[in-house]
Amino acid sequence: MSTDFAATKRLFQLPEGVVYLDGNSLGPLVKTAAARVAKVIEREWGDLLITGWNKAGWMDQPGRVGDRIARLIGAAPGSVVMGDTLSIKVYQALASALEMSPDRRVILSDTGNFPSDLYMAEGLCRTLGGRYTLKTVAPEEVMSAIDTTVAVTLITEVDYRTGRRHDMADITKRAHEMGALTVWDLAHSAGAFPVDLAGAKADFAVGCTYKYLNSGPGGPAFIYVAPQHAETARPALSGWLGHEAPFAFDLAYRPGAGIERMRVGTPPVLQLAALEAALDVWDQVDLNDLRAKSLRLQDQFIKGVESRIPGLALATPRSHLMRGSQVSFRHAEGYAIMQNLIAEGVIGDFRAPDILRFGFTPLFIDEDDVARAVNTLAKIMDYGTWDRPEFKKRAKVT
Amino acid sequence: MSTDFAATKRLFQLPEGVVYLDGNSLGPLVKTAAARVAKVIEREWGDLLITGWNKAGWMDQPGRVGDRIARLIGAAPGSVVMGDTLSIKVYQALASALEMSPDRRVILSDTGNFPSDLYMAEGLCRTLGGRYTLKTVAPEEVMSAIDTTVAVTLITEVDYRTGRRHDMADITKRAHEMGALTVWDLAHSAGAFPVDLAGAKADFAVGCTYKYLNSGPGGPAFIYVAPQHAETARPALSGWLGHEAPFAFDLAYRPGAGIERMRVGTPPVLQLAALEAALDVWDQVDLNDLRAKSLRLQDQFIKGVESRIPGLALATPRSHLMRGSQVSFRHAEGYAIMQNLIAEGVIGDFRAPDILRFGFTPLFIDEDDVARAVNTLAKIMDYGTWDRPEFKKRAKVT
Repeated sequence: MSTDFAATKRLFQLPEGVVYLDGNSLGPLVKTAAARVAKVIEREWGDLLITGWNKAGWMDQPGRVGDRIARLIGAAPGSVVMGDTLSIKVYQALASALEMSPDRRVILSDTGNFPSDLYMAEGLCRTLGGRYTLKTVAPEEVMSAIDTTVAVTLITEVDYRTGRRHDMADITKRAHEMGALTVWDLAHSAGAFPVDLAGAKADFAVGCTYKYLNSGPGGPAFIYVAPQHAETARPALSGWLGHEAPFAFDLAYRPGAGIERMRVGTPPVLQLAALEAALDVWDQVDLNDLRAKSLRLQDQFIKGVESRIPGLALATPRSHLMRGSQVSFRHAEGYAIMQNLIAEGVIGDFRAPDILRFGFTPLFIDEDDVARAVNTLAKIMDYGTWDRPEFKKRAKVT
Repeated sequence: MSTDFAATKRLFQLPEGVVYLDGNSLGPLVKTAAARVAKVIEREWGDLLITGWNKAGWMDQPGRVGDRIARLIGAAPGSVVMGDTLSIKVYQALASALEMSPDRRVILSDTGNFPSDLYMAEGLCRTLGGRYTLKTVAPEEVMSAIDTTVAVTLITEVDYRTGRRHDMADITKRAHEMGALTVWDLAHSAGAFPVDLAGAKADFAVGCTYKYLNSGPGGPAFIYVAPQHAETARPALSGWLGHEAPFAFDLAYRPGAGIERMRVGTPPVLQLAALEAALDVWDQVDLNDLRAKSLRLQDQFIKGVESRIPGLALATPRSHLMRGSQVSFRHAEGYAIMQNLIAEGVIGDFRAPDILRFGFTPLFIDEDDVARAVNTLAKIMDYGTWDRPEFKKRAKVT
């Protein structure tokens, strides 16, 4: 299969004149999503009312959609389920992993992790009564910090600021050698490049869908539990839809079969409909083609910026092996520069204190877009328009 | 104000020929919801992309919508925030309440509570390392079971099966006298009748929006924290959007101001849009009018059934003070009877083992609907069609 990226680009509704290099924060609208959601609202909710849970298949949707995600992250069918938010899924995975390691007290993470993962771990440690510790080390020290005190590693594969990518297989191997479990956050991995959870022998994984998977604002998260743990992992967030028989309305909880137990409450049917429309695009994508094009676009951007624009320092590793699908540069006035870029129709992202972040999403970004982004950035830096006072405001959202 | 319920009924898209007595499980579609969601998809997500978080106000939506819910449940502005599912919010409220009662070890609930609340409490107790106990008593024994060992009561105000309603003010008063806190689940209260959280001095409350508030399948939940606790309650599910400064990306968690700290992850923007459309209906509703009409419809139904249909036993209390907005009858063949009713266009709900459940939602149910429901039920019972074998199947979904 050779993926036709000109064809995938036509499936997105992109505003005229915009180069959108922020699909790693919020993916753009897939053209079919509005009609899909409207159908669910009008023909399912409106016409079927309560019977939609069975007749329209809403009840099974979290597992059905989970299987479509599974294909993109190297997971077996039946090992992924949708629901809640990424933060909630982090808590859920961590709590189960800690319970599976009763003699250990350390959650190991790194300072490049997305803060919400650390906050959720911190909240879990507090809930657990202070018996557990969240230990964070620099990203490059993760491997050496995995020792026999570690119960579980909590690592986001790709750093949200620098784009630095951890070696999932190596870290997982080291963790297992030390008797630790692994929780992988795939926020910047799923849909960004081929992920091989099964091959890497990851224990748990979590991720969101509104970035590279284009499910829209507030799209649901997913959780993966390795098949060998699926019947032993106990959910701390033990909601009724994770019960073995939700409609028996028993007073006592019994975990459901396998990954189903990681469901909690009522699934977000409208958000899932938007996600399903977005996932259709992936049916025509070979992830190896995606990766090759992503790296080509990144290299084009790095080369363009470095050859024409002094003063921007590459924050992303040069090695392809250590990259996700974004490129970041540092500049002390990064925020003002990014505001100017956005005003010129090149939308990237700023991350405090000094990171300019650009996502390269081959489904809808091509070489012409990259060339225009470089030209626009060069123009802004040449003319010094980036330090106009009106752009020196507070940081923007995700 | 005198509410025009003929006008509110016209705001709903109800299938032709259907009497929908299941708005207490999944509220029907408000006609404006599809266009509202489509606008958010096309004009906000599609056109604004990432900038929608600020420009379209997505980031502040959970608090803004929370304030609209607050008005319906007797809560002060700034004391309610939207997000996640009801089960997650139960966990969150309980965990905070337990932390505020460090010397007590009992969560008190009742056997009429919705099982997911009990499951989440059970999961929290397990996470807390077995130091805590979930104690459940019969609904009528709650008052006498509140003693000085109880850290927190976890009570759903209206029983999902029988429709029996607890006295929120009395139980809260008793709890406070014994030094306990209260968590109220308003799943069958919010939008069902006037709720007065502030007047009852409730400490925490949680609820869903897809029942009486008509937000659609998977609509988000809400959580209320009494203003006097809002700055001391610590969230166990400490996500980045509950942080004091989410976009500072600090490595350590600091709880946000007041109710904002109960936010966790990215809000479900599409589901919130459907909820906002549904909440518009409430702008023209006086909750006292709603309550008066709800009781009239319930009484009409009870009288009609009891005068014409032998063999159905009323499960709901006769006292208006002990009722929510539903009426339940028991019958050993309840499931088969309900399947026949649904086949005849009268949609109620069945709850194992023997409960026929009917929701009376004045926004779109009127006296003619009730008369037709009684007639249809009488016809099915007269002709004995309820025991046709094809209807004796598995229980259906909430």
